[in-house]
Amino acid sequence: MKQGHQNRKQDISIRFMPFDVSVEVPAGTNLLEAIREAGLPLKASCGGEGNCGECLVQVVKGSAGESYGTKPSAILSGELAGKGYVLACVTTVTGDITVDLPHFEELYIKSVAAFTLPDDEATGLSGSLEIGPIVSRVEIQVPAATLEDNYSDLARLEIGIRKAAGAEQVTCGRAVLKHLAAAIRQDDGRISATLFGTGPARTIIDLRPAGSAKPIYGIACDIGTTTIALSLVNLETGEVLNTAMGLNRQLKCGEDIISRINYASRPGGLDELRKLVVGTINTLIGKSIDGQGVSGGCISGQDIVYASVSGNTTMTHLLLGVDPRYIREEPYVPTFNRLSFLEAAGLGLALNPEARVYCAPAVGSYVGGDITAGLLATPMLRDTDKISMFIDAGTNGELVAGNKDWLMTCACSAGPAFEGGGVRCGMPATAGAIERFAITGDGDVEYKVIDSARPRGVCGSGLVDLLAELLVGGYVDRQGKIRKEAAGERLIEEDGSTGFLIERAEETYWGHDLVITERDITNLIRTKGAVFSACSLLLKQVGLTFDEVDAFYIAGGFGHHLDIENAIRIGLLPDMERERFHYLGNTSLLGSYLILISDDNRKLVEDVSRKMTYVELNTEPSYMNEYTGALFLPHTDLDLFPTIKKLLNRGQTPISR
Amino acid sequence: MKQGHQNRKQDISIRFMPFDVSVEVPAGTNLLEAIREAGLPLKASCGGEGNCGECLVQVVKGSAGESYGTKPSAILSGELAGKGYVLACVTTVTGDITVDLPHFEELYIKSVAAFTLPDDEATGLSGSLEIGPIVSRVEIQVPAATLEDNYSDLARLEIGIRKAAGAEQVTCGRAVLKHLAAAIRQDDGRISATLFGTGPARTIIDLRPAGSAKPIYGIACDIGTTTIALSLVNLETGEVLNTAMGLNRQLKCGEDIISRINYASRPGGLDELRKLVVGTINTLIGKSIDGQGVSGGCISGQDIVYASVSGNTTMTHLLLGVDPRYIREEPYVPTFNRLSFLEAAGLGLALNPEARVYCAPAVGSYVGGDITAGLLATPMLRDTDKISMFIDAGTNGELVAGNKDWLMTCACSAGPAFEGGGVRCGMPATAGAIERFAITGDGDVEYKVIDSARPRGVCGSGLVDLLAELLVGGYVDRQGKIRKEAAGERLIEEDGSTGFLIERAEETYWGHDLVITERDITNLIRTKGAVFSACSLLLKQVGLTFDEVDAFYIAGGFGHHLDIENAIRIGLLPDMERERFHYLGNTSLLGSYLILISDDNRKLVEDVSRKMTYVELNTEPSYMNEYTGALFLPHTDLDLFPTIKKLLNRGQTPISR
Repeated sequence: MKQGHQNRKQDISIRFMPFDVSVEVPAGTNLLEAIREAGLPLKASCGGEGNCGECLVQVVKGSAGESYGTKPSAILSGELAGKGYVLACVTTVTGDITVDLPHFEELYIKSVAAFTLPDDEATGLSGSLEIGPIVSRVEIQVPAATLEDNYSDLARLEIGIRKAAGAEQVTCGRAVLKHLAAAIRQDDGRISATLFGTGPARTIIDLRPAGSAKPIYGIACDIGTTTIALSLVNLETGEVLNTAMGLNRQLKCGEDIISRINYASRPGGLDELRKLVVGTINTLIGKSIDGQGVSGGCISGQDIVYASVSGNTTMTHLLLGVDPRYIREEPYVPTFNRLSFLEAAGLGLALNPEARVYCAPAVGSYVGGDITAGLLATPMLRDTDKISMFIDAGTNGELVAGNKDWLMTCACSAGPAFEGGGVRCGMPATAGAIERFAITGDGDVEYKVIDSARPRGVCGSGLVDLLAELLVGGYVDRQGKIRKEAAGERLIEEDGSTGFLIERAEETYWGHDLVITERDITNLIRTKGAVFSACSLLLKQVGLTFDEVDAFYIAGGFGHHLDIENAIRIGLLPDMERERFHYLGNTSLLGSYLILISDDNRKLVEDVSRKMTYVELNTEPSYMNEYTGALFLPHTDLDLFPTIKKLLNRGQTPISR
Repeated sequence: MKQGHQNRKQDISIRFMPFDVSVEVPAGTNLLEAIREAGLPLKASCGGEGNCGECLVQVVKGSAGESYGTKPSAILSGELAGKGYVLACVTTVTGDITVDLPHFEELYIKSVAAFTLPDDEATGLSGSLEIGPIVSRVEIQVPAATLEDNYSDLARLEIGIRKAAGAEQVTCGRAVLKHLAAAIRQDDGRISATLFGTGPARTIIDLRPAGSAKPIYGIACDIGTTTIALSLVNLETGEVLNTAMGLNRQLKCGEDIISRINYASRPGGLDELRKLVVGTINTLIGKSIDGQGVSGGCISGQDIVYASVSGNTTMTHLLLGVDPRYIREEPYVPTFNRLSFLEAAGLGLALNPEARVYCAPAVGSYVGGDITAGLLATPMLRDTDKISMFIDAGTNGELVAGNKDWLMTCACSAGPAFEGGGVRCGMPATAGAIERFAITGDGDVEYKVIDSARPRGVCGSGLVDLLAELLVGGYVDRQGKIRKEAAGERLIEEDGSTGFLIERAEETYWGHDLVITERDITNLIRTKGAVFSACSLLLKQVGLTFDEVDAFYIAGGFGHHLDIENAIRIGLLPDMERERFHYLGNTSLLGSYLILISDDNRKLVEDVSRKMTYVELNTEPSYMNEYTGALFLPHTDLDLFPTIKKLLNRGQTPISR
């Protein structure tokens, strides 16, 4: 026994259901750490502070209770605690137990806006929706060899393909070579060849019997830091057959980009992260094809011959097993932004081994392929007349301004407040999350809960509504302080903090009061301030104002619905004509889909990524001024928000400063 | 226990030295089969008939002797048997033993003509020897990124490479990406990049510190059915640093192409063959770099960035794991003849994972990359004035006729007689093989043995000499029958067969007489007849005669030296002016080297392989007539061999027919 282990505590065993996975850990281990040790994804947005409630698990076997060291928490009612529920992040395990993990993954992914094809008339995306992928299929008749005409199998196949596809040069992947001879003999030389390439050079990436009713498939994949979403697409029609979503298994290595980058620098960490993301994608591929039968038979990974992947720069580095460390070290440069096509087999993806994989190009360390692909889901790349802005707001906010002729982009660190992080009542947009809010003239709080469940917390769009209603109703001042006299009986003061009661204990899922505190509001203001000031600064870089922005496209991060009016009221979005705003949902997945179905789209994104100007906010001395000005509701300078100014003046909302 | 195994004999253990490998086999197993079961290569040219002597092994522990069922054999003397020697192919093992295998591999590979650079003046190869490989190295200075100039690492590297290499498009392999960021930060951005490609598009396949004294390396590899030879080459100077050779480990699965093709169709057989050839090549790569230090440090597989491989069509299919079955089924077409570059990592070769591998193109199922590469070792591909013939004679003989403007090729099944197969006294050109022969006017036999050892047998060049001397000396007639009165005391008659005594038992390695029998001579005549008739027929296809052939290049198969005069005397080669013949040795390896060092050579071979006309002898009705005519010494039609006719008439050699 090594000396360093002499004081090691006795190992205990924890079994996790429904996965039926067990780990051995020293007694005294934190339960959330044990869950991560087991490789099981479980979000805990609050970072182990015991206030987000996301890591609530039930101990179903073994002694639960005080002995686990669960700190008393307002989020965990006595009733739940009596049933063995504990918050994993504040629980210490001292003996063998069996733990039932909630199906958070299922809950969460259900809430992520599923992939829907845009209405091309309304969105102006008609050009982007034309089907013309870089892979295609030709049916040919390969003549049998004879003693007189004894060209090789490949040569006879190539001749047919050159003629059928109008190609000049044909090459063949090694995986195809292995079954080429058998394939062209199967049906008297009638065969369907899947080709990669659109120019004079083509590569044969698959062979199958001719006349097969089965089309060729592709996947569009959005690799988010938290969630991975993937759509199975018929490459011949553009039809989306299925969309599968799941938590990125890398979550066990850290919840945000920075912690992933740190994890990658541990011994073996980089390869572990690579395997985790590949494993998540492969599981989702399996889910997406599960039960997807067509008249030509069931779909298998072998039938998927092309993948379009969009993710932020760090996610793309990790998918390729490239250390992302320099992304977070000044001057913040990634190893690569643009790559040529990769082969699925080399990446470990469960597709046809010859399937080609395209990663949407990044512009810089904090403006990745999710953003460039996302732009395809807007008319910005084809529009010359108008000036548009695009924002993808999550933990990191990415902004783009411009049109077909010029594009500027920047990123800001918004913080996770609108995704439920750092806000006591915040939560992701899963079942039980309040997504819409209103406070009536009588001071009654009305809300809408996802899945009509008992409220567990408030998701991003709900928080925007809540903050706007509190401001407009005069319950908070423009600094975000709760006006005690206005809050009346909804005022909650405990442990030295002031809060506003959203719902009484008896009506909530947890059995305790749902409260938004001043600290929560401060975090929300910081986040919206970071986003707004970045938008403002980006425009100033090109001498423009919000008045000159014709369209404002909003993606990601806010759950199902973002109320634009309320977002303007709190100063998250600029005070522009409301019809100029367009909420688009998961543009990264949609953009990835558009790249998949049309190689013109891919080339467009590739070109655009080269031409975009990346503005590093860290080097802009005026950013801090902009940011400080935005730390009010809606802003220090009320003249920037004329409609809100009018509204607040009408309501006589007092301004503290 | 399964019913089928109820009668299974008790297992015994056989341990093989010097490899120290053990196998468990049922009692009663044939020892040669057990050796193959253990994966140990041991040739047995005679196919288990107990007459080639190549499978002689020594039982050093356990009971040896009659109990093993060794049949009495003229090839195994009582003296050797007393020391525990047995012929593995006719030995049945009944108890645990330890067997000392001879170092045949070492013996054999020593005898394969090592790779020597041709004298370009004499061979007319000066154009082919110019150094210009498809991989190159540039040294550049990558500027550090700054907050203002924050291009990705790859982008900054690409800019430098475009400038330094005059390239338009630069891509980067995934293995390089992984250490790109660290590499360009190692020495203030000074770096040496290895590039693949010669046109406007380049791929970065390796990065290393700038100013390294270490050049980049390539390997040229000849994959023979029996022997694999591999040269380590400095790609910047063309210098050959080392050549390693070894038996192809596929030998355990069969000695000739047909048996390999059959083995490939067994379950798992194809992948086993692929792994065996890859394993052999990797071992030879290890041998070739072992101890090859340069001032920049030791050479490793990582430093090898390009491989040029030449092998017959079946060997190339097996290297890629492609089933070669259709090569032996009418109409005898391979899956492929020409391929684009492959990646070393995908093939499993122990080189830089991004190293590119080029397989010399085949023309058809029985004229492979070893022949097209071999042509580069002749002036035929650049010569317009002369008409040349090229022959690579081994178990299969491949022929090419023509010049720069046209080339015809065919293959014939010559049989293994000149390689020691099917000839009782025959053996490969290893230590102990008689390689030169003369019979004096007095009837004394004089010979030269490889490594000056006691004679064990006769290799190809020795058999040609022997047969010629027997014919010219009047000891055999033109049908190959031994003239008993002329043979005198050298006449051996036993077991109903007639033979000519080469050496008495007391002078040989085995302690028994070394004899060539009439059956041996018949096999030799068949082989030489197949080769000659193929040569003759190929020329007739284009309306030419041997008189119009200006140069005749001979490669492979005959050991160190082939005596041209004697080859003509027996009718193996046509009766042309002697100075028109050129014996070139291992042209496949040399051609592979020439492809490696010059991409112009590669393109030339690629072009030539497309233009060559492949003649299928099986479909030529006149082939059998040609062949039958060639089954005499030197030929039925003595007028085809005027100088030999004169010689034989002078010697009054009786003609039996």
